[in-house]
Amino acid sequence: MKVDGHTVSDIGEFALIARLQEELGDQADAAAKLGAGTRLLLGIGDDAAVWLGATRAQIATTDTLVEGVHFPADVPWGDLGWKSLAVNVSDVAALGGAPEYALITLALPAGFLVQDALDFYRGLAEAGRRFGVVVAGGDIVRAPQFIVTVALTGRPSLSDDGSPLLLRRDAARAGDAIAVSGHLGDSAAGLRLLTGSIDCPPDSADYLRRAHLRPDPPVELGRTAVAAGLRCAIDVSDGLSQDLSHVCEMSGLAAVVHADRLPISDHLRRAFPEQATALAAAGGEDYELLLTGPVETLERLSSQAGVTLAVIGEMVADGPRRPRFLDSRGQEIVLRETGWDHFGAGRRRR
Amino acid sequence: MKVDGHTVSDIGEFALIARLQEELGDQADAAAKLGAGTRLLLGIGDDAAVWLGATRAQIATTDTLVEGVHFPADVPWGDLGWKSLAVNVSDVAALGGAPEYALITLALPAGFLVQDALDFYRGLAEAGRRFGVVVAGGDIVRAPQFIVTVALTGRPSLSDDGSPLLLRRDAARAGDAIAVSGHLGDSAAGLRLLTGSIDCPPDSADYLRRAHLRPDPPVELGRTAVAAGLRCAIDVSDGLSQDLSHVCEMSGLAAVVHADRLPISDHLRRAFPEQATALAAAGGEDYELLLTGPVETLERLSSQAGVTLAVIGEMVADGPRRPRFLDSRGQEIVLRETGWDHFGAGRRRR
Repeated sequence: MKVDGHTVSDIGEFALIARLQEELGDQADAAAKLGAGTRLLLGIGDDAAVWLGATRAQIATTDTLVEGVHFPADVPWGDLGWKSLAVNVSDVAALGGAPEYALITLALPAGFLVQDALDFYRGLAEAGRRFGVVVAGGDIVRAPQFIVTVALTGRPSLSDDGSPLLLRRDAARAGDAIAVSGHLGDSAAGLRLLTGSIDCPPDSADYLRRAHLRPDPPVELGRTAVAAGLRCAIDVSDGLSQDLSHVCEMSGLAAVVHADRLPISDHLRRAFPEQATALAAAGGEDYELLLTGPVETLERLSSQAGVTLAVIGEMVADGPRRPRFLDSRGQEIVLRETGWDHFGAGRRRR
Repeated sequence: MKVDGHTVSDIGEFALIARLQEELGDQADAAAKLGAGTRLLLGIGDDAAVWLGATRAQIATTDTLVEGVHFPADVPWGDLGWKSLAVNVSDVAALGGAPEYALITLALPAGFLVQDALDFYRGLAEAGRRFGVVVAGGDIVRAPQFIVTVALTGRPSLSDDGSPLLLRRDAARAGDAIAVSGHLGDSAAGLRLLTGSIDCPPDSADYLRRAHLRPDPPVELGRTAVAAGLRCAIDVSDGLSQDLSHVCEMSGLAAVVHADRLPISDHLRRAFPEQATALAAAGGEDYELLLTGPVETLERLSSQAGVTLAVIGEMVADGPRRPRFLDSRGQEIVLRETGWDHFGAGRRRR
């Protein structure tokens, strides 16, 4: 069927589902990455999906992107498809698990172009191959604006006796070092470049925009961290400051972060020399992992997992249940932006 | 915290999540209905939920309700909370499974009242107790209108050797009788009463509105059907005519339905004497089960499961892959309304 210029209401719900399913193909590449013994028994087209998991233990998470709230209207649909899955993969990685099956809910205006929906699914399928996620089903509904909700399941890491081993927000201990993977702040800088007219070298602009549009959460790092004996992590999605606050509150600890140790990319420094530290501390949507544990374990882990892991601070017993950011002289830095709250009791993003 | 007149943006995302969690309570009643060995290991508050399932086999489904598309603006929030879960339970029941864990995504306008969100969760928790569903997590986002997406998992029925036994849409056989549970058309009539000014006896109006607002899918019937050896079902959600069409297409068969055998309640006949048959044949949102199989099995099942099960027709080998509705003289009835398509390639609902 040619889809040039056709809207979803031209072709109807059932034809749309069939076309989206074609876009996914047989998902053999993604299925090859599933856990041993894991198999989809009933996929798209029945009342529900059914699969056989690797174990009885199951991780499940869900995340939603709303047009005009979570992304600007001119983001390429393929990038959005990738991102809608990747942000959920990040949550599974933060528990030390591996993602497996996804249910995709699309809310679309009646005038939405079929081609845009196909582009979205193409990006989604690319992310599925990257992260080993099989799309098992979903729902399509009509709504005034585009919204995508992904529900993602995964398998946890297991101990020798088969019980789940998790990286939890409440498992930090006083004296733990704090480390983060990759670079921070790139995604928030990329969003600024996407939404504003900002003077920036083209290669840095490309790099930063890509950091925002195609997040690549470190799944293998989470699993290696569990195997190395670590038990505490969170993904950096709302901004380092806010996400570390969650670890502080749930572990009943304070934290100190040395601002000059934040991993900041050269591109970010070049594009936003004045704001690089603030963007790294509170920008949000990094989809990197924050881990706490013995400093030697964290340093060893960095080489084991083949990812950059920067030790940026430590968990401490005394003080308010939040992170304090210190400059190189040990003076506290007050951040004006503290992270993302969807209803603005904290900072309002847009 | 007093919530009188407070909006979700007054109290912020994290305080809202805490209040909604209070509304759920410890969910002990729901947890008591989970499968043996099933246990929630990590609930609301971390990056993802983790549970131990009864078996490695897992059913998963998702369904979304959009304000102004799937429900009128003045539906009580508690009823909507119930319904958002019940419509997903219906999908699990249609596979012969039992529901277990749910992830709830709420998209709310910034000015949404906290009290309305709490009422919604109260209804959701009531449905959780009714169907044995534990809310394990979710997501809250800002959006221009209220949308709820529920992702629900469940355990399938199992054979003696532990492999999943499912009721599938593609498993009907020529010669199978077709049966439906409960009554059809009540929900569609209830929706008309909710949205229009229609003359109707008060007790019938109450009954029909309740059928629309508080659907009660027959979970036990699905499980009993599997145990009785049946293998084909679909839930009646888009209207009997359309849902039976799916069974026809996927099983490669035609179907005959005797319109005078459709199970129509006295209330529906009284309130809509002229339209009762059309509403039963194509109204939608019944959340009853359609089963196919040997007529003796279906008749026995009705008494075993303690629900009304009406045999309304049969699957036949020859003819177009859709149901034909016949009147008492064997003449085909042409239905003007054929069911629900979210984008209007079929009938547009509102």
